[in-house]
Amino acid sequence: MRLSRYFMPILKENPKEAEIVSHRLMLRTGMIRQQSQGIYSWLPLGKRVLDKVNAIIREEQNRAGAIELLMPTLQSAELWQESGRYDAYGKEMLRIKDRQDRPMLYGPTNEEMVTDIFRSYVKSYKNLPLNLYHIQLKFRDEIRPRFGTMRSREFLMKDAYSFDLTKEGAVHSYNKMFAAYLRTFNRLGLRAIPMRADTGPIGGNHSHEFIILADTGESEVFCHKSFLDRSIPGEDTDFDDVAGLQAIFEDWTKDYAATSEMHDEAVYDAMPEGERISARGIEVGHIFYFGTKYSEPMGAKVQGPDGKEHLVHMGSYGIGPTRLVPAIIEASHDENGIIWPESVAPFDVVVINMKAGDEACDAASETLYAALAKAGKDVLLDDTDDRAGTKFATADLIGVPVQVIVGPRGVANGEVELKNRKTGERETMTIEAAINRLAG
Amino acid sequence: MRLSRYFMPILKENPKEAEIVSHRLMLRTGMIRQQSQGIYSWLPLGKRVLDKVNAIIREEQNRAGAIELLMPTLQSAELWQESGRYDAYGKEMLRIKDRQDRPMLYGPTNEEMVTDIFRSYVKSYKNLPLNLYHIQLKFRDEIRPRFGTMRSREFLMKDAYSFDLTKEGAVHSYNKMFAAYLRTFNRLGLRAIPMRADTGPIGGNHSHEFIILADTGESEVFCHKSFLDRSIPGEDTDFDDVAGLQAIFEDWTKDYAATSEMHDEAVYDAMPEGERISARGIEVGHIFYFGTKYSEPMGAKVQGPDGKEHLVHMGSYGIGPTRLVPAIIEASHDENGIIWPESVAPFDVVVINMKAGDEACDAASETLYAALAKAGKDVLLDDTDDRAGTKFATADLIGVPVQVIVGPRGVANGEVELKNRKTGERETMTIEAAINRLAG
Repeated sequence: MRLSRYFMPILKENPKEAEIVSHRLMLRTGMIRQQSQGIYSWLPLGKRVLDKVNAIIREEQNRAGAIELLMPTLQSAELWQESGRYDAYGKEMLRIKDRQDRPMLYGPTNEEMVTDIFRSYVKSYKNLPLNLYHIQLKFRDEIRPRFGTMRSREFLMKDAYSFDLTKEGAVHSYNKMFAAYLRTFNRLGLRAIPMRADTGPIGGNHSHEFIILADTGESEVFCHKSFLDRSIPGEDTDFDDVAGLQAIFEDWTKDYAATSEMHDEAVYDAMPEGERISARGIEVGHIFYFGTKYSEPMGAKVQGPDGKEHLVHMGSYGIGPTRLVPAIIEASHDENGIIWPESVAPFDVVVINMKAGDEACDAASETLYAALAKAGKDVLLDDTDDRAGTKFATADLIGVPVQVIVGPRGVANGEVELKNRKTGERETMTIEAAINRLAG
Repeated sequence: MRLSRYFMPILKENPKEAEIVSHRLMLRTGMIRQQSQGIYSWLPLGKRVLDKVNAIIREEQNRAGAIELLMPTLQSAELWQESGRYDAYGKEMLRIKDRQDRPMLYGPTNEEMVTDIFRSYVKSYKNLPLNLYHIQLKFRDEIRPRFGTMRSREFLMKDAYSFDLTKEGAVHSYNKMFAAYLRTFNRLGLRAIPMRADTGPIGGNHSHEFIILADTGESEVFCHKSFLDRSIPGEDTDFDDVAGLQAIFEDWTKDYAATSEMHDEAVYDAMPEGERISARGIEVGHIFYFGTKYSEPMGAKVQGPDGKEHLVHMGSYGIGPTRLVPAIIEASHDENGIIWPESVAPFDVVVINMKAGDEACDAASETLYAALAKAGKDVLLDDTDDRAGTKFATADLIGVPVQVIVGPRGVANGEVELKNRKTGERETMTIEAAINRLAG
């Protein structure tokens, strides 16, 4: 992408309304724009990051055997009356009447709808286990949306729903998502800690929140420090291995970790002081096992091997991509801007032409741009006529992992400079060497 | 994907509510499910097709220089009051009040919001031309939604918006989208004919609908038969070439083509009878140039090279992916089911294990499945214990372009059968030859 033809509206000033660093940086880099209270547009730079986050979530959901579909945003109120949640869900639910005066709502979550899909088609235990997910917009009419897309009203959620014949089966389905979440957050450059959690309006009695530690987090959390270097399930994880996944679950839940709602001070205080962590955290995922809470009122049953009908055991599993983006920034930035993990960076490389219009600089920049693009890299070419200082500041601000600096003096020797955004390390090398290094 | 672990709920009976073939086939194959009137879930098979359609649209938008972002579904009424469309837009607009009693709406289109984004950031002609697009859900509260996702209330739209300093620039932007649309529909296996069109609630005076001919189309259309074999702009089209794109536009608009609203009977009747086509058509795209209709009331201005402020000239360009899927089916099916063009088929190949549980058949099927998946193909493996006849019928119904039939007799000779879904041609060959043929 040539910056001269891109739409990346960098703000010169720090926006006053932003209270936390991720919100400030997302506004400054032109990643997002507020359209109404708690409702945002994702501008092109933000959209690129969001797409990469979604792609990783999707890969790990698929790896764990979940199947993607797409449910609509608007739901009929009837479904929620069936489950009993229509009246129970408070003012956060956006209730709507259509032109025929039928009561609808903008889905805050999809347990009812997916249960309705399930009961319409699945009649036998032979089609279980089943895990259906989608990545779809949700709306929760928060009284106080804030921190940009960290707590917005219209937001994106990946929500998966598992269906099993038995509780034991459902526990395995839960463990699959548990392991998938560990892998997902790790690939996003985040260390997420699963904590026993309250179940809120989703219900059930077995639930974990995945929390990343951050000073700006809204929750107070308590855990053992062992979580900071616990090993992540590998790419070769066998999601059909019941005992293997249970072992991962046990390893990751044997030490103390709880949000303030579930905090047990006595247990926490019993740990040696040097092993305790008391911090603030951001919830980036939440998984629930809730048995027959929805299958019972909605009649979601299958025929078992015994020939009888059984209510299915269900769980649901949420990740918020539009919250993950600021969470990643909270975890990875410095005074000059964002430092993207490679896996979600909007561009892999930015080629900075220090002197656009100079024949040699233009030629070298174009050579690099074409070679890296051909190698399948996402490359941003800063071909604008801004001053070099502005270009360096922008490159640091938007946090692309590698900068290739093309200046007149270097190019005269056939050389360019590589800068690592994270470490600040710089290295001078020939254009060819730079291409070989980065195209790999 | 192993069918035994997939969610593809095939209906045995033709659903009674479906009036047209695409709706019937989408329901029968478990591609979609109606959740409320005119509101659909895209089940896994449908979601795969929809994703492939979106990917092609996106590639061609990007090739033409459009830049992707993502605007929200809910909009503030204020924006629409600014443009004057809040009152003008009828009951199709879904009006909503949030918990603070603020008037909102579910966007039926995004001219106002994108103009608001534009005016907030772009101040100079140097940043033009600009074309911003998104693929986002829209809602239009149709009084009579029908034909499945062909005319639904919640639907997906790719909508692009161009901004130029002058009318001449805007015409070039229009021509870019015109050429991109020809390429897009062609890649989707559709022959779309651009027709002069009425502009409706979007406004403006220069507009084309892209129509595919189909007996079940809702519009009556009239055109010259030359459109049926006119050549499509190539992959090497230079979208910066003003004269080249204008030539494409002129070539594709020189012959008569109009929807009934714009029909000129005298001109049509003047054509030799053998060259006339009078048919029904499905609108799959619509592009508009509307000058300063939105930039004027909303104050979207840039500084020109003359130092003065100029209202920008705008256009908008829509394609409905959720309508394209049934349109493709209308254009490509037979009495046994769907015949997907390769570019959007949910799977490239289906491997049919005629005798799951038979050691030799299982081994051959797994070899094929693994080799084709490794080659990057989307493969469906029918490893269920259904009867062979059911499996053949399902494979034909869901319309995967190539079937590999693995049966005990063939496998005893190391052979499998390839069937081309479209032509019905069958060919017997070794497993290795089948892999070489299909992995390429």
